[in-house]
Amino acid sequence: MKRQRINMSEHPDSFELQVRVRYVECDSFGLLHHARYFEYFEMARTELLRSRGIRYRDLEAQGVFFVMSHIECRYRAPVRYDDVVTIRTRVVRQTRARVDHTYEMLVDGRLVTEAASTLACVGRDGRPRLMPDAMWPAK
Amino acid sequence: MKRQRINMSEHPDSFELQVRVRYVECDSFGLLHHARYFEYFEMARTELLRSRGIRYRDLEAQGVFFVMSHIECRYRAPVRYDDVVTIRTRVVRQTRARVDHTYEMLVDGRLVTEAASTLACVGRDGRPRLMPDAMWPAK
Amino acid sequence: MKRQRINMSEHPDSFELQVRVRYVECDSFGLLHHARYFEYFEMARTELLRSRGIRYRDLEAQGVFFVMSHIECRYRAPVRYDDVVTIRTRVVRQTRARVDHTYEMLVDGRLVTEAASTLACVGRDGRPRLMPDAMWPAK
Amino acid sequence: MKRQRINMSEHPDSFELQVRVRYVECDSFGLLHHARYFEYFEMARTELLRSRGIRYRDLEAQGVFFVMSHIECRYRAPVRYDDVVTIRTRVVRQTRARVDHTYEMLVDGRLVTEAASTLACVGRDGRPRLMPDAMWPAK
Repeated sequence: MKRQRINMSEHPDSFELQVRVRYVECDSFGLLHHARYFEYFEMARTELLRSRGIRYRDLEAQGVFFVMSHIECRYRAPVRYDDVVTIRTRVVRQTRARVDHTYEMLVDGRLVTEAASTLACVGRDGRPRLMPDAMWPAK
Repeated sequence: MKRQRINMSEHPDSFELQVRVRYVECDSFGLLHHARYFEYFEMARTELLRSRGIRYRDLEAQGVFFVMSHIECRYRAPVRYDDVVTIRTRVVRQTRARVDHTYEMLVDGRLVTEAASTLACVGRDGRPRLMPDAMWPAK
Repeated sequence: MKRQRINMSEHPDSFELQVRVRYVECDSFGLLHHARYFEYFEMARTELLRSRGIRYRDLEAQGVFFVMSHIECRYRAPVRYDDVVTIRTRVVRQTRARVDHTYEMLVDGRLVTEAASTLACVGRDGRPRLMPDAMWPAK
Repeated sequence: MKRQRINMSEHPDSFELQVRVRYVECDSFGLLHHARYFEYFEMARTELLRSRGIRYRDLEAQGVFFVMSHIECRYRAPVRYDDVVTIRTRVVRQTRARVDHTYEMLVDGRLVTEAASTLACVGRDGRPRLMPDAMWPAK
């Protein structure tokens, strides 16, 4: 059991992604629609993986999928069309079966959003499975 | 102060919306993408308002806007392309400045998702404002 | 050859779908974003099929997919948030390998958009294949 | 009349934008959904403008808007999740009232899509207006 539960805070794992807000993503206020933030977080996770040499596309080809189990977002300040936002993503906990991320979004150095999510690893059949070794830091 | 903080549980306020899942809303699994749920909740709030005789479009024309402050979603079971989902929305707390909703999503009578959100009322300038009288039940 | 090319105008095949414009689909003008129209046309095609007793979901399960080959849209008048639009879809030409649709969008009886598309039928491998018999009117 | 109709082919005006295909933009095939291409073209136009020193956000603040009048797209080959696509955008004709663009999308140097659009310039009231001088090359 213990071997399946590794606290990743000992293996810090974070990434900063920059994204420019698209016109189509904004509402009638000219502000980033609240549902779109989750698409940014998804990109941030993908790029964090890529920074570790893993392409999510390859994982799926191998039958490794991640499904959202829980997500939460606090909106502190609005984000405008054409803003360049920085998304700081961090793996705060990882087991063989799930990954917890936290997210901070910044515009011009100012924190505008905080979020957290839990993903579960599943196989092609949608049932829980363990993550492959490639997703783990070498000992 | 007390008059500004009315617990809406004394004035139950809920609505059930049915939505068919669109192809474009699904991922490579053929499942509703997790960010799309928030668009369904938005529709559910709009229809809840409409059931009380208020069109959100008219509110915006009057300079009354609602911005998302916090949202949270727990995904219990997947939702497939072409499923018809029922979204049960409830106002669980309302003051002159904010509204808290909860959401339950069901497919074939089975609970697949639970969520909760907090909206803040703002004016055209994006600053907090009080909700208009029309949003309140007559005494 | 001739058997593969049936002019569907002899077998009129059309459908009217009504859709309410969602908040998330609108731009900073409060108008339906031009890319979203194509999502409405997709729904219209799905419902046209359903009206003939065919679920697109079932087709995909059988390895029958439709990929967009060409699409064109003329925007005549804007469509606003919360408008209920009517989408009139018609199959104007169908062979065993492709389907041509036309679309008219109306708001309050007024024509706001015209469009046309060509879909190709492909298999799970993405290569062209013939449509199943179920997609054809009985002789 | 002649002064209003300047053939921009004398003032070549093009731009290449690179975009990585997002997970949320793909369908159950893992391919870029056909409606999403139009969002890429929109970004491409925005970046073409930026390359000329104009921010679309600033234009809107000045009451200058562009609405889609006609758009057309031919899909030649599929685009996959995580692909990096190059969008070559060109202004092929521009008057004081409208702009025509063409688009080519490439993946790994291979042409996958061709498109063309016509935008009309409107004011805050949605009625046609002339483009500001800033949108024109100095004589």
